[in-house]
Amino acid sequence: MLCSLRCLAAATMLCHTAAQAQPMFSAADLQTSTALARAAEQSGLAYELVDSLVTEIGPRPAGSANDARAVAWALARLKALGFSNVRAEEVPLRAWKRGEAHAHLTAPFPQPIVMAALGNSVATPKEGLHAEVAYYADLEALKADTSERAKGKIVFIDQKTERTKDARGYARAVAARGAGPAEAAKRGALALAIRSIGTDRDRLAHTGATRYAEGVAPIPALAVSVPDADLIARLQRYGKPLKMHLSLQAEGGIAGTSHNVIAEIPGSDKADEIVMIGAHLDSWDLGPGAVDDGAGVGIVTAAAQLILDSGAKPRRTIRVVLFANEENGFDGALGYAAKYKDQVHQFVGESDLGAGLVYRFQSRVRPEALPVVRAIAEQLAPLNIALGSNEGTPGPDAGLLMRRNAWPALELSQDGSDYFDWHHTANDTLDKIDPLKLRQNVGAWAVMSWLAAQSHISFGPMPKP
Amino acid sequence: MLCSLRCLAAATMLCHTAAQAQPMFSAADLQTSTALARAAEQSGLAYELVDSLVTEIGPRPAGSANDARAVAWALARLKALGFSNVRAEEVPLRAWKRGEAHAHLTAPFPQPIVMAALGNSVATPKEGLHAEVAYYADLEALKADTSERAKGKIVFIDQKTERTKDARGYARAVAARGAGPAEAAKRGALALAIRSIGTDRDRLAHTGATRYAEGVAPIPALAVSVPDADLIARLQRYGKPLKMHLSLQAEGGIAGTSHNVIAEIPGSDKADEIVMIGAHLDSWDLGPGAVDDGAGVGIVTAAAQLILDSGAKPRRTIRVVLFANEENGFDGALGYAAKYKDQVHQFVGESDLGAGLVYRFQSRVRPEALPVVRAIAEQLAPLNIALGSNEGTPGPDAGLLMRRNAWPALELSQDGSDYFDWHHTANDTLDKIDPLKLRQNVGAWAVMSWLAAQSHISFGPMPKP
Repeated sequence: MLCSLRCLAAATMLCHTAAQAQPMFSAADLQTSTALARAAEQSGLAYELVDSLVTEIGPRPAGSANDARAVAWALARLKALGFSNVRAEEVPLRAWKRGEAHAHLTAPFPQPIVMAALGNSVATPKEGLHAEVAYYADLEALKADTSERAKGKIVFIDQKTERTKDARGYARAVAARGAGPAEAAKRGALALAIRSIGTDRDRLAHTGATRYAEGVAPIPALAVSVPDADLIARLQRYGKPLKMHLSLQAEGGIAGTSHNVIAEIPGSDKADEIVMIGAHLDSWDLGPGAVDDGAGVGIVTAAAQLILDSGAKPRRTIRVVLFANEENGFDGALGYAAKYKDQVHQFVGESDLGAGLVYRFQSRVRPEALPVVRAIAEQLAPLNIALGSNEGTPGPDAGLLMRRNAWPALELSQDGSDYFDWHHTANDTLDKIDPLKLRQNVGAWAVMSWLAAQSHISFGPMPKP
Repeated sequence: MLCSLRCLAAATMLCHTAAQAQPMFSAADLQTSTALARAAEQSGLAYELVDSLVTEIGPRPAGSANDARAVAWALARLKALGFSNVRAEEVPLRAWKRGEAHAHLTAPFPQPIVMAALGNSVATPKEGLHAEVAYYADLEALKADTSERAKGKIVFIDQKTERTKDARGYARAVAARGAGPAEAAKRGALALAIRSIGTDRDRLAHTGATRYAEGVAPIPALAVSVPDADLIARLQRYGKPLKMHLSLQAEGGIAGTSHNVIAEIPGSDKADEIVMIGAHLDSWDLGPGAVDDGAGVGIVTAAAQLILDSGAKPRRTIRVVLFANEENGFDGALGYAAKYKDQVHQFVGESDLGAGLVYRFQSRVRPEALPVVRAIAEQLAPLNIALGSNEGTPGPDAGLLMRRNAWPALELSQDGSDYFDWHHTANDTLDKIDPLKLRQNVGAWAVMSWLAAQSHISFGPMPKP
């Protein structure tokens, strides 16, 4: 990286200015922050909430009976914890429902295939379909194919997911799931199968939402487990036709409702400004959603509860939002964005990358607020959290709100190295969560939320990208 | 440990004697041994064989069509490798066949349960059964229960499996699977469920053979995945009745046949004495049996092939035996024991604890042969293999032969720390095998088999336990 003399001079001036500036927070506010971090070390609430949610409710896909039970659960728990304005706000949605699904290879060798339909997949005919498999190493290879090779076949995309600390490996791979079916359908394929978007090597398929393109007839879409994808890749080497029988039942477009569940700690002199910390209440149907996103539900709720129980009165209103249907349509976030678009949000944030330790604090605030961000970072440093950039992304629902309403955002980046081992699978169970790591998360969210609520400087509007 | 003066004196004399004794092996035999160990470092055959077996055949429960395909595969591969007397020896058996099976909790909360029938389980009525769950922390707790608590219930045994380097943790836990159903049935239970006998935390159930007691009507028996067992354990804490619906179809006692597949390197002056190295060809039905026991098939075959290709002529006949139906009745081992009971076996050995590194060499030979064992151990030491005791156990089929026919045995103990993560599950796939570790196994088996074939001293008969 090059740095001119002028740039060096400017940096020196900035440091000088910062050193002489007034402290960003009062001594009392900093004391409260320290007390919150300490209290989090003893807090078992986040884990207790995830335990309760996965044990008493389990899988809770949006619009399902279990989703409604989860909403009732959340209302009861948030009320019992003593929050104000606890409410469920209705969210209309179109639900998708999985049916029976089976796949097996018939050639060159008979082999069972562990698979799961992708969310929103259409069904095969009742009797299933049987076709040759057209193998593509990744989505780019399919996109680049201008031949007729995919026509009348089951397209298989062998897209691999790289293990990364952040969600970068996932982000690079997931287009195969989102765009694969449309790309295959455009080329006349009968169905689309992908290697599961996941970093594990378990015989469990990863579901997740897919979408179809307008003007292209939708085709059944599924993910096979990683070891089954390995098998298909090995079978390619035999140079013989590979055939699959596929039967997949599913029903989409089911009119339903769910609810965003909201709880607040009312502010004092800036009560009309919102510090919004969120997670999503729904899960995919294959597992009980412990890391996705029971962990987030536990973390942000326990963080707010620490502030509530500290007795300290925040200046801004701290609002916990448990979003509806993050997994398959963002209906909760869309509803929230529309309903609250005129309400000032100091920041929006979301915990939705599992239960790993927070290692980084990032922001997306106007430049004038960066000194506050740095002052918050100082309070997060004892939790082993480093300051990142001002190009943070605050999780899926909060990210949608940030982009749609130009609301500023704060991000607590979790170590997601193992998150995509379990994400969207039956394996997303309570045993994947380390209670001690949750406590560090709770401390970080409590400190960040408290200090942002007290800041004399407004974070918004979000800077233009 | 106490040691008398007399004992010390005896030990000193032994050392003295050993130091002055003639070398156990000729220089040429030791040269061959070293060459075998070196060749193994470059040998890809074991991995290639497992790959071929799991890719082309897959799951191969005894008596199934895939089992017959596996026998044909083994005959063809062993012939192609140039072995002598390649043959399949018929083994009659009673097969068991899995049907559809589902379980879910209905109280205190509805929850799906991931489970698998245990091998030999009888079926539930077509419509399933619905009953309260009687929880027992382990098999001992059930055995100790003299009350009527289990009557009319689904007994659940929450037996945990400890992770150990050898199979000790498994051995301690597995009685819950073998004896649990009979213990539950005796107490009037409707069905028996256990926590999977496994060290993983995956949402995949571990199957495995169970047995029923004479005079007690058999009841359906199943294993639930480890996370589902955790769920059941957590639900106990609610102090409310726990109810399960269970539907399990299965068919047992199906008359069938399989085959032991045998290949030899004929010996020279002691051709009528057998060095038997084995593995089992069958697998459970849930997965393709890569570590159990594709790895063993690959290891012992590749070890014998190294000897064959070395051009060195063994004194004794080296015999590779791929046993039929180890998993559910030992029919192959029983057939072999009967057929060859009068043939002198220098030793029997078996590779059946997965694909981990060999860390220990053990024996079960007459005391006079211990100097040979020590001399073999010297040749294994460069492979990081330590000498253990003379109370070795040579794997399940070979162990049966050892006990039944008083044949001596040699054991190459593998590090099985992760073996029971995948054992008897759908997850037993090729990706769980490290090709480099297989090479070390092949070297160890080649060295041990070669030297035992050349020894001037006979290992048998097996010493009395």
